[in-house]
Amino acid sequence: MSARPSSAALRGGNADTRPHPSKPFPIGLLGHGTVGSAFDTLLGERSPYVQRLTGRAPVLAGTLTRSQGSFEEILAGSELVVELLGGIEPAREYVLRAMRAGRHVVTANKQLLSQHGEELFAAAAENGVQLRFEAAVAGVVPVVRVLAESLAGAHLERIHGIVNGTTNFILSEMERGSSYQEALAETQRQGYAEADPSDDVSGRDAAAKMAILARLAFGTPVHLDEVPYEGIEHLQADDLQYARELGLGLKLIGTAERRDGGLSVRVHPAFLYAGHPLASVRGPFNAVTVESDAITEITMSGPGAGGRQTASAVLGDVVSVMRPPCVPPPPLEPLALVRDVSSSFYLHMEVADRPGVLGEVANVLGDCGASIKSVVQRGLGENARLVMVIHPISQSRLDDALQRIAELDFLRSAPRAIRVIEEEFNV
Amino acid sequence: MSARPSSAALRGGNADTRPHPSKPFPIGLLGHGTVGSAFDTLLGERSPYVQRLTGRAPVLAGTLTRSQGSFEEILAGSELVVELLGGIEPAREYVLRAMRAGRHVVTANKQLLSQHGEELFAAAAENGVQLRFEAAVAGVVPVVRVLAESLAGAHLERIHGIVNGTTNFILSEMERGSSYQEALAETQRQGYAEADPSDDVSGRDAAAKMAILARLAFGTPVHLDEVPYEGIEHLQADDLQYARELGLGLKLIGTAERRDGGLSVRVHPAFLYAGHPLASVRGPFNAVTVESDAITEITMSGPGAGGRQTASAVLGDVVSVMRPPCVPPPPLEPLALVRDVSSSFYLHMEVADRPGVLGEVANVLGDCGASIKSVVQRGLGENARLVMVIHPISQSRLDDALQRIAELDFLRSAPRAIRVIEEEFNV
Repeated sequence: MSARPSSAALRGGNADTRPHPSKPFPIGLLGHGTVGSAFDTLLGERSPYVQRLTGRAPVLAGTLTRSQGSFEEILAGSELVVELLGGIEPAREYVLRAMRAGRHVVTANKQLLSQHGEELFAAAAENGVQLRFEAAVAGVVPVVRVLAESLAGAHLERIHGIVNGTTNFILSEMERGSSYQEALAETQRQGYAEADPSDDVSGRDAAAKMAILARLAFGTPVHLDEVPYEGIEHLQADDLQYARELGLGLKLIGTAERRDGGLSVRVHPAFLYAGHPLASVRGPFNAVTVESDAITEITMSGPGAGGRQTASAVLGDVVSVMRPPCVPPPPLEPLALVRDVSSSFYLHMEVADRPGVLGEVANVLGDCGASIKSVVQRGLGENARLVMVIHPISQSRLDDALQRIAELDFLRSAPRAIRVIEEEFNV
Repeated sequence: MSARPSSAALRGGNADTRPHPSKPFPIGLLGHGTVGSAFDTLLGERSPYVQRLTGRAPVLAGTLTRSQGSFEEILAGSELVVELLGGIEPAREYVLRAMRAGRHVVTANKQLLSQHGEELFAAAAENGVQLRFEAAVAGVVPVVRVLAESLAGAHLERIHGIVNGTTNFILSEMERGSSYQEALAETQRQGYAEADPSDDVSGRDAAAKMAILARLAFGTPVHLDEVPYEGIEHLQADDLQYARELGLGLKLIGTAERRDGGLSVRVHPAFLYAGHPLASVRGPFNAVTVESDAITEITMSGPGAGGRQTASAVLGDVVSVMRPPCVPPPPLEPLALVRDVSSSFYLHMEVADRPGVLGEVANVLGDCGASIKSVVQRGLGENARLVMVIHPISQSRLDDALQRIAELDFLRSAPRAIRVIEEEFNV
């Protein structure tokens, strides 16, 4: 368990003593659909960086699609197999054969893991290879790693998850007043639902993911067939209307929790109070809350789907296989530290309440390159309060403007400035 | 890089072939303050579980406090050193000596890492030991592991973090109308601020954490002294008042982001729009949002302080050192699957609008063990709609009640039931 691969390992263990070129790290890719092709692209973009990080450049040794490629050839030429076929067969057979041949496997296959997980985990252990599957649950949200590693020593009590982005998007639409059918159509139009969304809307997709999370969190094998699930097809717009009146949000929630000395794993629509960490998760996002006496609760959220996002989770697993993750690596391409950054600002000034004040302040700001986005002026007897938000400006220009404003004779106290972060998130 | 420790490794590498008792895994503990004593307690509780997970029981080989213990003896008797002294010296000297002696180190020391990180990382690499520090940033929120491992292959653009729970608590109090001084006093009264809170309220504590995160996310060494920071001492209650009017929240935000071809790392108060993932983080919580083209954004949140929470992050690191985290371990103590769990429910019924209807429904519910928490009845011409929330009841009893209600002659459509999750979070 050395923290740093030996220099031989960095060069792939070959006997070549030249530092460059190092031996590539060949990856066999099974499946070239949305996620598979996104992984192909992302790997091409990030391979130089991963080479600097791990000493070896990951490269595709071959790709198996429905119409082309030979599994045997891909297996023979790769050190790691990425399985993005989905479904049970032939994915199960390929993953087992790869591990038995001593290959590490990274997969995003929730169906396979939730129905044949124990067989796969046992094969990985028997053959001394890694089997990683971050992308199988909650897309790029790193819940698999956090449960398997960060919380490996914790006594967990409960997991609540929004683990299906399609249904969360539909429910967000219904919150705005759409019927279920309208919301589903909109979700399909925006590309967040499959043409056949039945696995999503029935809760079955979420049930598979909760079976996987329950295994990780509670060390208990859970088969998809053992997870009772209820979907969102029967929900009506007025359920969401009443929910709003009661101060509740409605989500499709997966739960895995200790109950009555055992474990309950289930998926169903549920109302949440506004203070619940999952209540504010809207649109095609996923989020998971993990509760335990020792940690109180942790919540993780992010996009639950998307080819590039899922491919990023797959690549994180690939890098973990390539590099024992123990110590920050030496700085690779250190960036210069930039000090004088631009930001939008809120400005607060107390001024004499007389004509022309706002104009003079605006002139000074304009001279310094600041433009006003919005302004509120309010009388306070003889004085007035000016509160404004200005468009992004560099710190040095702002400091200059503040200094000049502070010298204006109608200022009643030093002007105050606080940054405003303009981005909005989470539709 | 084997996925499974060899059975010799499981027994600690000794030549003893008896399966039990395995050799304990001795840990030297430096520091026995709030976090140190919580770690001591948590380790005692979780040692049997960690033994099942890793094959070895972690035990304290010795504890160094200000008044007792010998570092040399502790070092000689341990395989891993947990450093919870805080501050620079003697923590720096002990951590370096431990690594040079071939010991893995787990630390929560943000001052040390933000001022001497490169020296420590180099020592870990040179000596082939692990240096882990999840607890140094954002308490139990697993941001260090996620940046170092899950996102190791990603091209990150920006990190925004609320990484100081004390200031976030103060700002939450100020949002409710308190002055800064009142809010600080309340924060101290509730134990979320030190007697001397200057490192927290000045932004210096957050700056140290952002220096560490910037190193992980952007591969660029950043010294605490290179992070400009601004605190919250100068904020006024009416800044928060105006913020509310503008639909903004005010937080102390740490930022590390690519800017102008370089890297900007800084800490300052900032206004956030309501849709920003950090806008809803209140009280003594920490949260970090990571942005990248490939992942869109991930947000992680949880308690930012607390001895037991921080100790849990330390224990997660200890377990990671003890067990190469690759494959789910075999089930250890599988739990029985429980199916018939209790829940609070929302019920929706359309009924004839005539006297006695609510009473009959309530009687049926009562017969089945359900008690009504709240109810709304609303007329719809000849019919009425009954919406109620009932206290927790098992699924089987609810099904029984729904069946009996459906048979009542005044029902106009099948009753609908949706679960309600009662817990509230995030003060």
